[in-house]
This record gives sequence, C-alpha cells and structure tokens, in this order.
Amino acid sequence: MPVSVNGLTQEKYQIPVNLDDTASIEQFLRQHKGKKVIVVQGLGFVGAVMALVCANAKSEEYAVIGVDLATEEAYWKIKSINDGMFPLIADDPKIAEFFNRAKEKGNLFATYDPVAFKYADVIVVDINLDVEKRSSEDAILKEFDVNLKGFKSAIKSIGSNCREDVLVLVETTVPPGTCEKIVKPIIEEELSSRGLEIGNYRLGHSYERVMPGPEYIDSIREFPRVYSGSSEVSADAVEVFLETIIDTSVCDLTRLEHTSDTEMAKVLENSYRAMNISFAVEWSRFAEEAGVDLYAMVNAIRVRKTHSNLMYPGIGVGGYCLTKDPLLASWSRKTFFGSDSDLKMSVNSVSINDQMPIFAFNRLVQVFGDLKDKKVTFLGVSYRGDVGDTRCTPVETLVDKVLEAEATIQLHDPFVSFWEEKKCDIESDLDAVLESRSDLVIISAGHSEYKSPKVILKLLEMESTNIYDTIGLLSTEQISLLQEKHKISVLGRGDL
Amino acid sequence: MPVSVNGLTQEKYQIPVNLDDTASIEQFLRQHKGKKVIVVQGLGFVGAVMALVCANAKSEEYAVIGVDLATEEAYWKIKSINDGMFPLIADDPKIAEFFNRAKEKGNLFATYDPVAFKYADVIVVDINLDVEKRSSEDAILKEFDVNLKGFKSAIKSIGSNCREDVLVLVETTVPPGTCEKIVKPIIEEELSSRGLEIGNYRLGHSYERVMPGPEYIDSIREFPRVYSGSSEVSADAVEVFLETIIDTSVCDLTRLEHTSDTEMAKVLENSYRAMNISFAVEWSRFAEEAGVDLYAMVNAIRVRKTHSNLMYPGIGVGGYCLTKDPLLASWSRKTFFGSDSDLKMSVNSVSINDQMPIFAFNRLVQVFGDLKDKKVTFLGVSYRGDVGDTRCTPVETLVDKVLEAEATIQLHDPFVSFWEEKKCDIESDLDAVLESRSDLVIISAGHSEYKSPKVILKLLEMESTNIYDTIGLLSTEQISLLQEKHKISVLGRGDL
Repeated sequence: MPVSVNGLTQEKYQIPVNLDDTASIEQFLRQHKGKKVIVVQGLGFVGAVMALVCANAKSEEYAVIGVDLATEEAYWKIKSINDGMFPLIADDPKIAEFFNRAKEKGNLFATYDPVAFKYADVIVVDINLDVEKRSSEDAILKEFDVNLKGFKSAIKSIGSNCREDVLVLVETTVPPGTCEKIVKPIIEEELSSRGLEIGNYRLGHSYERVMPGPEYIDSIREFPRVYSGSSEVSADAVEVFLETIIDTSVCDLTRLEHTSDTEMAKVLENSYRAMNISFAVEWSRFAEEAGVDLYAMVNAIRVRKTHSNLMYPGIGVGGYCLTKDPLLASWSRKTFFGSDSDLKMSVNSVSINDQMPIFAFNRLVQVFGDLKDKKVTFLGVSYRGDVGDTRCTPVETLVDKVLEAEATIQLHDPFVSFWEEKKCDIESDLDAVLESRSDLVIISAGHSEYKSPKVILKLLEMESTNIYDTIGLLSTEQISLLQEKHKISVLGRGDL
Repeated sequence: MPVSVNGLTQEKYQIPVNLDDTASIEQFLRQHKGKKVIVVQGLGFVGAVMALVCANAKSEEYAVIGVDLATEEAYWKIKSINDGMFPLIADDPKIAEFFNRAKEKGNLFATYDPVAFKYADVIVVDINLDVEKRSSEDAILKEFDVNLKGFKSAIKSIGSNCREDVLVLVETTVPPGTCEKIVKPIIEEELSSRGLEIGNYRLGHSYERVMPGPEYIDSIREFPRVYSGSSEVSADAVEVFLETIIDTSVCDLTRLEHTSDTEMAKVLENSYRAMNISFAVEWSRFAEEAGVDLYAMVNAIRVRKTHSNLMYPGIGVGGYCLTKDPLLASWSRKTFFGSDSDLKMSVNSVSINDQMPIFAFNRLVQVFGDLKDKKVTFLGVSYRGDVGDTRCTPVETLVDKVLEAEATIQLHDPFVSFWEEKKCDIESDLDAVLESRSDLVIISAGHSEYKSPKVILKLLEMESTNIYDTIGLLSTEQISLLQEKHKISVLGRGDL
C-alpha cells in the first residue's frame, strides 16, 4: 500500500485508492454558498501559501480549494491541511496567523481530485515545471532539457474539468511563450471536446515574487506584481482578481502587453539574480587565490547606486528558481522562437552556481586539510536563512563531498526536522550539537539563530576546532574573537 | 618632420626634436616657489582632468605639471594646454571654469620631458594600459593579452628621475597585483641604481571613477574613492594627498588593505558593469526574436531594490574601460596568481558586448532591408551621451558595417569635430544634417540635443524615412508621433 510521509511530523499516511473526493468537496462548498471558489493547483512552497493568502483575501471572502496529486511526495500536504496543520515551517508568524484564521472560517480545503476544477471561478496554477540537467561530476552543466509532460497533463486536467467561463491564472515559472503555445491550445481543445464554447474562458499569467522566509506572506500580498492576459478581457479579469488579494495600497500591479512578456520578465528577473551570484562565485575564487578580502571590496563598490546589486560571496545559490529559470529562458529562445543562439550569460550562470559547493569543498580541503575520519558539523542545511527549504540546497553537494572524504557528519537546522531529499533526520538541539566534539564546524545557512552571541559563546567554549563560514555570517569582530581559539576561514575573505 | 594634429582644431604642430624641456619646467616652478609639486603622468581623458582638479585643489595650492609623450597622438595635448586650450570637450561647464582659473593662477603646465618627475612631491600615474584582443570577424573574442611594455617603461621613467621620498600614486586600471609585482620592483631598482634609499618613497593605488560627461569634474572631486598603500605609511600619505583634492564632506574615502585589493576592486567594479550590459544585449536579442518589449519588462523589474542595476538594451558599450578591464582581471588571475581558471562571466561579457554593434546591424537589415545605395545618417559617434569620447565606440563598427553594405553615410556629433580613430570630420550643424534627405536615420548616441522637441519636429518634417533608435532615446510618445510618418525600430523593443 503506497504511503506518503508527512515532511514535518514523519507520520505516515496511506494514499487513498479511491480518488473520487466529490462528496467532501461538495460538503465543503455547501458551507460556503455564494462565495467565489478559488482552486489553487499545486501545494508546494508557492501554492500552499498562495492558497492561504486567497483564504485570507483582502476584500473578498473566497472558498479556497488546494489541489495536488495523490502521490508519495504530495499527498501528505493535502492530508496535513485538512487535518489542521500547515505543510511547511517558516519563520513568518503570519503563516500561523493566516492558517488559524482560515481554520476558524473553514474556508480552506485540500483535495487530490481534479473534479475540484469544475467548481472554480478562478484556477491558480502553481505547479512545478522542472528542467532536466545533465552535468559532469564537477557539476559543470553539459546539457539540459525542459520536459513539459507533467505541466501539460496538469493543464489538461484543468481543461477537462473547468467551467467554460473560468479564469485560469498561470503563476508557474514557464518558458516564455508557454501560455500562448501550450496552455491556450490545450484548454481550448479540452473545452471543445466537451462541446463547450472556447471564447468565454480567460487566461492570464502573473508571477509571484514569493520569498520563503520571515516575510513569506507579505512577499505575496505586499509585493509589486506583474501580470498579463491573453486578451484585454483576460487581463482585466486577472487585475480584478489580483486586486482582491494583493495590497495595492502598498505595492503596484503592472500590466504588460502579452503573456509572453510576463513569462519572460519572470525568467529575466531570476536570470539576473543567478548571474549576479555566479559573478560573486568567480570573483570569490579569484580573491581566495590572491589572498584578498572580497567582502571589503564589495562594500567599497556597493556605495555606487549603479553597483548596489553586487552580491557577496557564498555557497548560497539554491532553491527551486535560480537553479533552473535561466535554462527555461534559453530553452524557450531556441524551441519556441527558433533562435540558434542560447542565452550564454544566463546558462553559464547556472553552471557556475552549480559548481559553487564543489569550489567550497576544494577551498575547505586547501585550508583545513584532509577530512578522513574527522567529525564535521553543519550548521544549516536549508538554502536560505530562516526558512526550512532544502530544494536544490548547495549544502547537499557539500555534505556529499564531505562524506566522500570519509568524514562523519552531524547536521543541524532549526527549520528542517527531516531532510526530504536526503531522507535523513536533522538535529534541532543546537546546544547539544555544539557541545559534542567536532573537528570542523561549517556554517552553511544564514539562520538568525547562528548569529546570536549565545552561539559565538558556545563556539568559544568548544575545544580547539576549525570553523568554516561559507556564507559570510560571522562579523569581523566575531572572527577576531573566535580566532583566539580556533582556525577560521570564510569563503571569499582570502587569508584571515 | 613628425607632426601631431590637434584633435579639436585640426591645427598641426611640429613635434620638437630636442626633448630637453628643463628650462621651461624650472621657469614654471620658479613662479610657484614653496608650493608642492604634483606631476600627472598621462594627459588622456583621466589625466588631463585629474591635472585640472589638482590645479584647483580644495585645500592646498599645488604647482601641477602634466607629462605626456612627444608622439603624434599625445604631443598636441601638451601644446594645447600650454597654449591655453584644454584638450577635450565635454558638456561640463566646470571644465572651462577650472581651466580658466588654472590659467589665471598659472599653476598648470605640461611637458614631454620626464625630467619633470625630479621635482615632484606626488606623481599621479594616469597612463593607459591596453589589452590586445584578437577576435573573429563577428567580433567574437578569441584571445587576448596584456602588454605591459609601455606601462613598465612609464614607471621606469618615473623611477629613473624621481626623488627618493616621492609619493607615487597609481590611478591607472591595472591587472590586480601590478603595484606589488611590477611597479614596486621597477622603482626600487631604479632608485638603487642611482644610489638612493629605497625605504623612503611611498607607493599607493587609488582608482578614480571618472565619468566623462556633464559631471566630469565632480566625478573626480565629489565621488567616493577607494585607496590603498603598499604599507601603512604609504596609505597614510595617499590619504593626506587625496584629502586635499577630494571633497570628503560629500563623499567617503575608503582604505583597503593592500594595493591588490583596490586594483581588484576597480576591475571588479567595471566587470560588473560590463556584465550587466552583456546581459541586456542577450535578452535584447531574445526580446526582438519573440517580438516583445524589453523596456517594459526592465521597467517592471527594476522596481525591486535587488534588481535596480538591471540595464536597458542598446549598442552602448564603449569607452576605454568596460571593453578591457574584465580581461585585465582574468589575465591577472592566470598570470600573477597562477590560477588555471579564467573569469568566464567577465570575459564572456567583453565578447558579447563587442558583438553588440554587429547584432544591431543584423537587426537593422532584418527590419529595414538592404542598404545598398541608401543614404544613412548617424546621430552621434561618441560612445556616451554628452561627451566627445570616441574611444572604442560601438558606433565605429556599426558605421563600418553600413559602409560595407554600400550605403553612403553622414555623421553628426555635437561633441566631436574630428573622429580621431576614423580620421574623418564630423558634421556639427544638426539642422543641415536633418534637412538633407536620408533613407535611414540612426540614433546612435544619447546626446541631450537629440532628445529635444526641436529634433523630433525636424524628423517629422523629413520626407518619409526610416528611424533606427539603437539606444532607446525616443520616448513612447515620440515613437507614436514619428510612426505617423516614418517606419521606426528601437533595439530591444520588439515589434513596434
């Protein structure tokens, strides 16, 4: 019997065999007669929170249904929501606040049954769209491809269920051109095959700029947003909907002309970020070789307004977006628009960023020597500070390299109790972790907890150890203090 | 008899054969007894203005001598300064103001005789350091090398003349490591060979962020500056000097630890800029292929503070710095620090930017068709708005491509009367240029004059013509207006 493990509690749920959930859906909707129905497709790091935001819409009471698949990876999220537990942890108190309010109102429900789309006034598409990468052992990107199969089948499940006057709002990051060349034809074909009109539905694209972390909710509700529609009428419908959930008193809605424009804007935005990170990666290596401090240089340069986006070094690229969005763009350019050129700067960024943790490992060995039979403690496995998101975390590769070097490891993270990708438990008691002997402590995520004086004191109490700060978390003062007892290296800081 | 042509007046000067200028130098210095002597080596776009700034120092009266070579390219600048004409034109009224004040005070003199270094308290090095590039016909960068010969010989001419207690301040953009590995040994060898102490001279590096244009002078005097010394004492000496010429009430001086740090910061800063431009180049091509408007996207994205450095498309990279500084960095990494990796993101930027005008030409042909026997008018040949700087201007390649396509051309620029690199005269009468018939008007530089309503009216009065805006100078309203009569294309704006 297939089971799905709750990523927060490790509780095991049996995945239902009978996938007809109509009765529960209709029971939910009976309690919300007269309310517009929003169905959010995909309950991941964006969809789950988007569903929460819709259930707490600013100026309208919605009945909100989250839909995901009855799979090992996703089913527990559905069950968890319906059992009254939000399926992700983040350092944003609003997550609990919004979820509790939705529970009180009872206007958030989750299901695996695509029949839910039938009842929707608005369907928000927040599913994944993955890039398949083929890389060398050193993580140099060799080839990549975009597999639209899962995406197409998700759109098809909408088209084969939805009302003919639905608004479909795609929020998924897609190769530019996807709404026009993929979504539109599929929905129209499905509507036609059911004998429905194809002129009444509305299709739009708008990308969230959600940022898992302490301002998770506000990064959706209070952040400028770009949107478009496949027609003027569609764009108007998107605008009306977004105005009910986005706080337009503090942030702007910007309409672009075509769905291709907003799709391209999204991947452009993330490619820019990925490129800035890859730039820091390369200069960080150079600074280490030349024995100079890249942090001091970056500080001196960032005073220029034209250079304020210059980034600090680190091993920090991870997450679901920056590691693939530039590739979606380049793929689209060649596949949808027939160009024979790729977006070299953007594609190279991904490759260079993928190599970051390997560079970080090499530097580690160079500074601290061989790791065989050493005990290595990692502080943080998430890819980003103050959130439990381990998707594409660079820490994974660094952990692998350290294990390959025959060290033993212990892993700590206040936001991750079970590391899904590596299928292992993570320590949550920082004191215990720091009290146990380590040959090397690697600061590998920027969680606020690690910056506290208490942690520095704990590190000072440790027996002589090595400390490797891969993200520049330690301040110059903290480094001086710790250097009295330990050997320290900070990525990109040259010789300390 | 070798001559040097005045780039502003086309007047021809005979280059002196007797290069002993001691008498004139000593005569100049007799008039400024008791004043500290600053010698600026190099009278190019930085050195000439730096000399002007020193001659108008904030808190000290200096006697300033500019030194350049008695060559065809440089001699006219020396002569021009001594004849009372500043050797460059820019839209900054302070240039004239400062030069007139220096003339009144008589404290700025120029010479070709390196004996001048003998009298210097401070020597500021503002000479060129070039990169030799080898590229394909399509401007794809194949190989490059840094030739230090000229730079070394310039430093040698300082070392073989200077006092043993001089402060040598290198402002030239150099491969990181140059002060330590090149300048220091040469000066010490020269001092030793003259039987002088090598422990008394001071060596520093500080990079200007000079920006030719309407705020030319202020970009030196009122802009944050980074500096370093080869020792604490040297760094202190640099600080004392800089405080007399930089207005530290409005901008900071930041000291970095080693000369390698500031050298690296400079090329890092410019590489970042070059990279941002190359990113815009690639996405501009993509936007054109997809028929969407990159300007609208960039506007929508730049609202994010983390994305505010995202640049607009254009053919605009040029000038002496961004086209080579990333290569200096990569060269240093391999040559001075023994790395086997180059700075791929930075090197690629240069190559992509070098290809910009070729992309622009291809787009031109795609939109407007064959140019054979057409008449093409270029508005602007400078690489930057409101300044007469044609060094490495991308317009040069575009002009070449248009000529290759067998069109006839006319060139206008309010800031360039003679195009040194192409050895041709440039029209200055904009009315006449716009009144003559053209099949195609290319807006190729962002001079303020071209943005005026008067010019738009003139363009509207023209017979039906094509307008190609390569730098996004035209506003949406101006485009609408002009479209009533002309066919228009703007690089990166997709289909209009």
